[in-house]
Amino acid sequence: MTPKKRTRGQLIVLSGPSGVGKSTVIAELLSERENIYFSVSFTTRAPRVGEADGVHYHFVTRERFEAMIDGDELLEYAEYVHNYYGTSLRLIREKLDAGIDVLLDIEVQGAAKVRAKCPDAVFIFIVPPSFEELSRRLHRRATDQEDVIRGRLQKAREEYREIPNYDYLVVNDKVSAAAAEIIAILTAEGCRTKNRMNLVEGV
Amino acid sequence: MTPKKRTRGQLIVLSGPSGVGKSTVIAELLSERENIYFSVSFTTRAPRVGEADGVHYHFVTRERFEAMIDGDELLEYAEYVHNYYGTSLRLIREKLDAGIDVLLDIEVQGAAKVRAKCPDAVFIFIVPPSFEELSRRLHRRATDQEDVIRGRLQKAREEYREIPNYDYLVVNDKVSAAAAEIIAILTAEGCRTKNRMNLVEGV
Repeated sequence: MTPKKRTRGQLIVLSGPSGVGKSTVIAELLSERENIYFSVSFTTRAPRVGEADGVHYHFVTRERFEAMIDGDELLEYAEYVHNYYGTSLRLIREKLDAGIDVLLDIEVQGAAKVRAKCPDAVFIFIVPPSFEELSRRLHRRATDQEDVIRGRLQKAREEYREIPNYDYLVVNDKVSAAAAEIIAILTAEGCRTKNRMNLVEGV
Repeated sequence: MTPKKRTRGQLIVLSGPSGVGKSTVIAELLSERENIYFSVSFTTRAPRVGEADGVHYHFVTRERFEAMIDGDELLEYAEYVHNYYGTSLRLIREKLDAGIDVLLDIEVQGAAKVRAKCPDAVFIFIVPPSFEELSRRLHRRATDQEDVIRGRLQKAREEYREIPNYDYLVVNDKVSAAAAEIIAILTAEGCRTKNRMNLVEGV
Protein backbone atom coordinates (compact mmCIF):
# COMPACT_ATOMS: atom_id res chain seq x y z
CA MET A 1 0.00 0.00 0.00
CA THR A 2 1.35 3.40 -0.97
CA PRO A 3 0.90 6.04 1.69
CA LYS A 4 -1.81 8.51 0.82
CA LYS A 5 -1.04 12.18 0.99
CA ARG A 6 -2.91 14.30 3.50
CA THR A 7 -5.63 15.84 1.41
CA ARG A 8 -6.48 19.14 3.07
CA GLY A 9 -4.15 22.12 3.43
CA GLN A 10 -3.45 23.82 6.74
CA LEU A 11 -4.62 27.30 7.61
CA ILE A 12 -1.79 29.29 9.21
CA VAL A 13 -2.42 32.60 10.94
CA LEU A 14 0.52 34.94 11.45
CA SER A 15 0.26 38.02 13.65
CA GLY A 16 2.77 40.44 15.07
CA PRO A 17 3.16 44.14 15.72
CA SER A 18 3.58 46.62 12.91
CA GLY A 19 7.29 47.00 12.17
CA VAL A 20 8.30 43.52 13.34
CA GLY A 21 9.20 42.57 9.75
CA LYS A 22 6.36 40.15 8.98
CA SER A 23 6.40 40.94 5.25
CA THR A 24 10.11 40.18 4.96
CA VAL A 25 9.76 36.94 6.92
CA ILE A 26 6.78 35.93 4.75
CA ALA A 27 8.70 36.66 1.54
CA GLU A 28 11.56 34.45 2.76
CA LEU A 29 9.12 31.74 3.81
CA LEU A 30 7.36 31.71 0.43
CA SER A 31 10.67 31.49 -1.41
CA GLU A 32 11.82 28.55 0.74
CA ARG A 33 8.61 26.52 1.02
CA GLU A 34 6.43 25.08 -1.73
CA ASN A 35 2.73 24.36 -1.69
CA ILE A 36 1.82 27.41 0.33
CA TYR A 37 -0.46 30.24 -0.66
CA PHE A 38 -0.26 33.67 0.89
CA SER A 39 -3.72 35.12 1.27
CA VAL A 40 -3.63 38.77 0.31
CA SER A 41 -5.86 40.82 2.61
CA PHE A 42 -8.26 43.54 1.62
CA THR A 43 -7.73 46.94 3.20
CA THR A 44 -9.03 50.47 3.06
CA ARG A 45 -5.70 51.98 4.08
CA ALA A 46 -3.58 53.87 1.55
CA PRO A 47 -0.73 51.95 -0.12
CA ARG A 48 2.76 52.69 1.28
CA VAL A 49 5.63 53.44 -1.07
CA GLY A 50 6.49 50.23 -2.91
CA GLU A 51 3.24 48.46 -2.12
CA ALA A 52 1.34 47.04 -5.08
CA ASP A 53 -2.38 46.32 -5.32
CA GLY A 54 -3.04 42.58 -5.29
CA VAL A 55 0.46 41.83 -4.00
CA HIS A 56 0.73 43.41 -0.54
CA TYR A 57 -2.98 44.11 -0.19
CA HIS A 58 -6.08 44.46 -2.27
CA PHE A 59 -6.60 48.17 -1.78
CA VAL A 60 -10.29 49.04 -1.81
CA THR A 61 -12.52 51.93 -0.83
CA ARG A 62 -14.43 52.02 2.43
CA GLU A 63 -17.68 51.66 0.45
CA ARG A 64 -16.48 48.50 -1.33
CA PHE A 65 -15.23 47.01 1.96
CA GLU A 66 -18.54 47.64 3.70
CA ALA A 67 -20.34 45.96 0.79
CA MET A 68 -18.15 42.86 1.35
CA ILE A 69 -19.09 42.88 5.05
CA ASP A 70 -22.78 43.09 4.16
CA GLY A 71 -22.38 40.33 1.53
CA ASP A 72 -20.78 37.97 4.11
CA GLU A 73 -17.76 37.59 1.84
CA LEU A 74 -15.14 37.79 4.62
CA LEU A 75 -13.65 35.13 6.90
CA GLU A 76 -12.75 37.93 9.28
CA TYR A 77 -12.32 41.66 9.27
CA ALA A 78 -11.28 44.30 11.75
CA GLU A 79 -10.79 48.01 12.02
CA TYR A 80 -7.25 48.97 12.96
CA VAL A 81 -5.84 52.50 13.24
CA HIS A 82 -8.97 53.82 11.45
CA ASN A 83 -8.79 51.41 8.51
CA TYR A 84 -10.51 48.14 7.66
CA TYR A 85 -8.51 44.94 7.07
CA GLY A 86 -10.20 41.69 6.02
CA THR A 87 -9.80 38.25 4.50
CA SER A 88 -11.83 36.85 1.61
CA LEU A 89 -13.28 33.37 2.12
CA ARG A 90 -13.55 31.98 -1.42
CA LEU A 91 -9.88 31.66 -2.39
CA ILE A 92 -8.89 30.24 1.00
CA ARG A 93 -11.46 27.45 0.75
CA GLU A 94 -10.33 26.57 -2.78
CA LYS A 95 -6.66 26.34 -1.78
CA LEU A 96 -7.23 24.31 1.40
CA ASP A 97 -9.47 21.88 -0.50
CA ALA A 98 -6.69 21.48 -3.10
CA GLY A 99 -4.26 20.47 -0.30
CA ILE A 100 -2.42 23.77 -0.33
CA ASP A 101 -1.47 25.48 2.95
CA VAL A 102 -2.85 29.00 3.29
CA LEU A 103 -1.00 31.72 5.19
CA LEU A 104 -2.89 34.67 6.64
CA ASP A 105 -1.15 37.80 7.89
CA ILE A 106 -3.74 39.35 10.20
CA GLU A 107 -3.76 41.33 13.40
CA VAL A 108 -4.94 40.00 16.75
CA GLN A 109 -8.62 40.95 16.49
CA GLY A 110 -8.94 39.18 13.15
CA ALA A 111 -6.97 36.21 14.45
CA ALA A 112 -9.38 35.86 17.38
CA LYS A 113 -12.26 35.65 14.91
CA VAL A 114 -10.48 33.00 12.82
CA ARG A 115 -9.71 31.06 16.03
CA ALA A 116 -13.40 30.95 16.86
CA LYS A 117 -14.35 29.78 13.34
CA CYS A 118 -11.34 27.50 12.60
CA PRO A 119 -9.95 26.02 15.84
CA ASP A 120 -7.72 23.68 13.80
CA ALA A 121 -5.78 26.56 12.26
CA VAL A 122 -2.19 27.12 13.42
CA PHE A 123 -1.57 30.46 15.19
CA ILE A 124 1.89 32.01 15.16
CA PHE A 125 2.86 35.32 16.76
CA ILE A 126 6.03 37.11 15.69
CA VAL A 127 7.81 39.45 18.09
CA PRO A 128 10.91 41.62 17.72
CA PRO A 129 13.88 40.87 20.00
CA SER A 130 12.81 43.88 22.12
CA PHE A 131 10.54 46.95 22.11
CA GLU A 132 13.64 49.09 21.67
CA GLU A 133 14.41 47.21 18.45
CA LEU A 134 10.78 47.53 17.30
CA SER A 135 11.01 51.28 17.79
CA ARG A 136 14.27 51.35 15.79
CA ARG A 137 12.67 49.39 12.95
CA LEU A 138 9.63 51.67 12.81
CA HIS A 139 11.88 54.74 12.67
CA ARG A 140 14.12 53.13 10.04
CA ARG A 141 11.07 52.41 7.87
CA ALA A 142 10.49 56.19 7.86
CA THR A 143 7.03 55.95 6.39
CA ASP A 144 5.22 57.14 9.50
CA GLN A 145 5.13 60.35 11.52
CA GLU A 146 6.42 60.26 15.12
CA ASP A 147 2.90 60.23 16.59
CA VAL A 148 1.90 57.32 14.32
CA ILE A 149 4.98 55.40 15.48
CA ARG A 150 4.08 56.11 19.09
CA GLY A 151 0.57 54.79 18.35
CA ARG A 152 2.02 51.63 16.79
CA LEU A 153 4.25 50.98 19.79
CA GLN A 154 1.32 51.46 22.17
CA LYS A 155 -0.76 49.12 19.97
CA ALA A 156 2.06 46.56 20.05
CA ARG A 157 1.94 46.47 23.85
CA GLU A 158 -1.80 45.80 23.68
CA GLU A 159 -1.33 43.08 21.06
CA TYR A 160 1.23 41.35 23.27
CA ARG A 161 -1.54 40.55 25.74
CA GLU A 162 -2.98 38.21 23.10
CA ILE A 163 0.23 36.16 22.78
CA PRO A 164 -0.90 33.37 25.15
CA ASN A 165 -3.73 32.61 22.68
CA TYR A 166 -1.20 31.78 19.96
CA ASP A 167 0.23 28.26 19.53
CA TYR A 168 3.72 29.41 18.62
CA LEU A 169 5.95 32.40 19.29
CA VAL A 170 8.73 33.31 16.86
CA VAL A 171 11.31 36.00 17.57
CA ASN A 172 12.32 37.87 14.42
CA ASP A 173 15.93 38.56 15.21
CA LYS A 174 17.31 37.24 11.92
CA VAL A 175 14.82 36.88 9.06
CA SER A 176 16.25 33.58 7.81
CA ALA A 177 16.11 32.02 11.29
CA ALA A 178 12.54 33.22 11.87
CA ALA A 179 11.46 31.83 8.47
CA ALA A 180 13.23 28.53 9.22
CA GLU A 181 11.34 28.23 12.51
CA ILE A 182 8.02 28.85 10.78
CA ILE A 183 8.89 26.23 8.15
CA ALA A 184 9.68 23.75 10.96
CA ILE A 185 6.32 24.58 12.55
CA LEU A 186 4.51 23.88 9.26
CA THR A 187 6.38 20.60 8.81
CA ALA A 188 5.62 19.55 12.39
CA GLU A 189 1.96 20.48 12.07
CA GLY A 190 1.81 18.31 8.94
CA CYS A 191 3.15 15.42 11.09
CA ARG A 192 0.35 15.72 13.65
CA THR A 193 -1.30 12.36 14.20
CA LYS A 194 -4.76 13.78 13.49
CA ASN A 195 -3.57 14.95 10.05
CA ARG A 196 -1.91 11.66 9.21
CA MET A 197 -4.13 8.80 10.31
CA ASN A 198 -4.82 8.15 6.63
CA LEU A 199 -1.19 6.97 6.32
CA VAL A 200 -1.80 4.13 8.81
CA GLU A 201 -3.10 0.79 7.62
CA GLY A 202 -5.88 -1.10 9.34
CA VAL A 203 -6.59 1.27 12.19
CA MET B 1 17.13 43.36 26.53
CA THR B 2 18.67 40.19 25.21
CA PRO B 3 16.22 37.30 24.78
CA LYS B 4 16.65 34.68 27.48
CA LYS B 5 17.02 31.09 26.40
CA ARG B 6 14.34 28.64 27.40
CA THR B 7 15.82 26.98 30.45
CA ARG B 8 14.27 23.53 30.60
CA GLY B 9 14.80 20.75 28.04
CA GLN B 10 11.97 18.89 26.39
CA LEU B 11 11.17 15.25 27.04
CA ILE B 12 10.56 13.43 23.75
CA VAL B 13 9.05 9.96 23.67
CA LEU B 14 9.53 7.88 20.54
CA SER B 15 7.63 4.64 19.97
CA GLY B 16 7.15 2.35 17.01
CA PRO B 17 6.96 -1.32 16.17
CA SER B 18 10.02 -3.54 16.36
CA GLY B 19 11.72 -3.50 12.96
CA VAL B 20 10.53 -0.03 11.94
CA GLY B 21 14.10 1.26 12.07
CA LYS B 22 13.90 3.44 15.18
CA SER B 23 17.58 2.93 16.10
CA THR B 24 18.73 4.06 12.64
CA VAL B 25 16.46 7.10 12.71
CA ILE B 26 17.67 7.97 16.22
CA ALA B 27 21.33 7.67 15.16
CA GLU B 28 20.67 10.04 12.25
CA LEU B 29 18.78 12.42 14.52
CA LEU B 30 21.57 12.53 17.11
CA SER B 31 24.18 13.20 14.44
CA GLU B 32 22.10 16.08 12.96
CA ARG B 33 20.83 17.76 16.12
CA GLU B 34 22.78 19.20 19.04
CA ASN B 35 21.71 19.57 22.63
CA ILE B 36 19.84 16.29 22.76
CA TYR B 37 20.49 13.34 25.03
CA PHE B 38 19.37 9.83 24.18
CA SER B 39 18.23 8.05 27.30
CA VAL B 40 19.52 4.49 27.19
CA SER B 41 16.93 2.08 28.58
CA PHE B 42 17.53 -0.76 30.96
CA THR B 43 16.44 -4.20 29.77
CA THR B 44 16.59 -7.83 30.81
CA ARG B 45 16.59 -9.09 27.22
CA ALA B 46 19.77 -10.55 25.72
CA PRO B 47 21.93 -8.27 23.56
CA ARG B 48 21.56 -8.78 19.79
CA VAL B 49 24.62 -9.09 17.58
CA GLY B 50 26.32 -5.68 17.46
CA GLU B 51 24.54 -4.28 20.52
CA ALA B 52 26.76 -2.86 23.23
CA ASP B 53 25.96 -2.48 26.92
CA GLY B 54 25.42 1.18 27.82
CA VAL B 55 25.01 2.16 24.17
CA HIS B 56 21.90 0.39 22.88
CA TYR B 57 20.67 -0.69 26.30
CA HIS B 58 21.91 -1.17 29.81
CA PHE B 59 21.65 -4.96 29.92
CA VAL B 60 20.82 -6.15 33.44
CA THR B 61 19.59 -9.28 35.12
CA ARG B 62 15.98 -9.81 36.07
CA GLU B 63 17.00 -9.60 39.73
CA ARG B 64 18.71 -6.22 39.28
CA PHE B 65 15.74 -4.88 37.32
CA GLU B 66 13.28 -5.93 39.99
CA ALA B 67 15.43 -4.23 42.62
CA MET B 68 15.17 -1.00 40.57
CA ILE B 69 11.38 -1.38 40.49
CA ASP B 70 11.30 -1.85 44.26
CA GLY B 71 13.67 1.12 44.76
CA ASP B 72 11.36 3.42 42.73
CA GLU B 73 14.30 4.27 40.46
CA LEU B 74 12.33 4.08 37.19
CA LEU B 75 10.27 6.70 35.34
CA GLU B 76 8.45 3.82 33.67
CA TYR B 77 8.96 0.17 32.97
CA ALA B 78 7.08 -2.53 31.13
CA GLU B 79 7.28 -6.19 30.30
CA TYR B 80 7.41 -6.87 26.56
CA VAL B 81 7.81 -10.26 24.88
CA HIS B 82 8.85 -11.74 28.29
CA ASN B 83 11.50 -9.10 29.06
CA TYR B 84 11.56 -5.96 31.17
CA TYR B 85 12.35 -2.56 29.65
CA GLY B 86 12.60 0.57 31.78
CA THR B 87 13.84 4.15 32.06
CA SER B 88 15.96 5.55 34.88
CA LEU B 89 14.80 8.83 36.38
CA ARG B 90 17.98 10.43 37.67
CA LEU B 91 19.83 11.18 34.43
CA ILE B 92 16.71 12.43 32.69
CA ARG B 93 16.02 14.97 35.41
CA GLU B 94 19.61 16.20 35.34
CA LYS B 95 19.57 16.70 31.55
CA LEU B 96 16.18 18.43 31.41
CA ASP B 97 17.20 20.78 34.23
CA ALA B 98 20.36 21.62 32.28
CA GLY B 99 18.21 22.66 29.27
CA ILE B 100 19.03 19.56 27.27
CA ASP B 101 16.29 17.70 25.37
CA VAL B 102 15.94 14.06 26.37
CA LEU B 103 14.86 11.40 23.87
CA LEU B 104 13.24 8.18 25.12
CA ASP B 105 12.79 5.15 22.87
CA ILE B 106 10.04 3.21 24.64
CA GLU B 107 7.13 1.01 23.65
CA VAL B 108 3.48 1.94 24.01
CA GLN B 109 2.90 0.68 27.57
CA GLY B 110 5.86 2.67 28.88
CA ALA B 111 4.83 5.70 26.84
CA ALA B 112 1.36 5.62 28.40
CA LYS B 113 2.97 5.72 31.86
CA VAL B 114 5.18 8.67 30.87
CA ARG B 115 2.13 10.43 29.43
CA ALA B 116 0.35 10.13 32.77
CA LYS B 117 3.39 11.46 34.69
CA CYS B 118 4.66 14.06 32.16
CA PRO B 119 1.76 15.41 30.09
CA ASP B 120 4.06 18.10 28.63
CA ALA B 121 6.33 15.54 26.98
CA VAL B 122 6.18 15.24 23.18
CA PHE B 123 4.97 11.86 21.89
CA ILE B 124 6.04 10.66 18.44
CA PHE B 125 5.07 7.33 16.86
CA ILE B 126 7.09 5.93 13.94
CA VAL B 127 5.45 3.61 11.43
CA PRO B 128 6.82 1.78 8.40
CA PRO B 129 5.33 2.65 4.98
CA SER B 130 3.30 -0.61 5.25
CA PHE B 131 3.01 -3.87 7.22
CA GLU B 132 4.43 -5.67 4.18
CA GLU B 133 7.53 -3.50 4.42
CA LEU B 134 7.74 -4.07 8.19
CA SER B 135 7.70 -7.82 7.57
CA ARG B 136 10.45 -7.41 4.96
CA ARG B 137 12.58 -5.40 7.40
CA LEU B 138 12.16 -7.95 10.20
CA HIS B 139 13.17 -10.77 7.84
CA ARG B 140 16.11 -8.76 6.50
CA ARG B 141 17.37 -8.17 10.06
CA ALA B 142 17.57 -12.00 10.32
CA THR B 143 18.08 -11.96 14.09
CA ASP B 144 14.74 -13.58 14.91
CA GLN B 145 13.08 -16.91 14.21
CA GLU B 146 9.95 -16.95 12.04
CA ASP B 147 7.61 -17.37 15.03
CA VAL B 148 9.24 -14.41 16.82
CA ILE B 149 8.76 -12.30 13.69
CA ARG B 150 5.10 -13.34 13.54
CA GLY B 151 4.79 -12.33 17.20
CA ARG B 152 6.38 -8.93 16.48
CA LEU B 153 4.00 -8.29 13.57
CA GLN B 154 1.00 -9.21 15.72
CA LYS B 155 2.34 -6.94 18.47
CA ALA B 156 2.76 -4.13 15.92
CA ARG B 157 -0.95 -4.35 15.04
CA GLU B 158 -1.81 -4.03 18.72
CA GLU B 159 0.58 -1.09 19.17
CA TYR B 160 -1.05 0.71 16.25
CA ARG B 161 -4.22 1.09 18.32
CA GLU B 162 -2.27 3.47 20.58
CA ILE B 163 -1.31 5.81 17.72
CA PRO B 164 -4.16 8.29 18.38
CA ASN B 165 -2.58 8.95 21.81
CA TYR B 166 0.61 10.24 20.15
CA ASP B 167 1.04 13.88 19.15
CA TYR B 168 2.93 13.16 15.96
CA LEU B 169 3.16 10.36 13.42
CA VAL B 170 6.29 9.89 11.32
CA VAL B 171 6.52 7.41 8.45
CA ASN B 172 9.99 5.88 8.20
CA ASP B 173 10.21 5.47 4.44
CA LYS B 174 13.61 7.17 4.09
CA VAL B 175 15.69 7.50 7.26
CA SER B 176 16.95 11.02 6.47
CA ALA B 177 13.40 12.26 5.79
CA ALA B 178 12.06 10.70 8.99
CA ALA B 179 14.90 12.22 11.03
CA ALA B 180 14.32 15.62 9.37
CA GLU B 181 10.64 15.50 10.33
CA ILE B 182 11.51 14.70 13.94
CA ILE B 183 14.01 17.57 13.99
CA ALA B 184 11.28 19.90 12.67
CA ILE B 185 8.96 18.63 15.43
CA LEU B 186 11.60 19.39 18.08
CA THR B 187 12.20 22.87 16.63
CA ALA B 188 8.45 23.56 16.51
CA GLU B 189 7.91 22.34 20.06
CA GLY B 190 10.67 24.69 21.17
CA CYS B 191 8.67 27.54 19.53
CA ARG B 192 5.51 26.77 21.53
CA THR B 193 4.25 29.91 23.22
CA LYS B 194 4.16 28.21 26.62
CA ASN B 195 7.88 27.42 26.30
CA ARG B 196 8.81 30.91 25.17
CA MET B 197 6.91 33.45 27.21
CA ASN B 198 10.23 34.31 28.90
CA LEU B 199 11.31 35.86 25.56
CA VAL B 200 8.52 38.44 25.72
CA GLU B 201 8.99 41.73 27.51
CA GLY B 202 6.44 43.22 29.85
CA VAL B 203 3.74 40.56 29.64
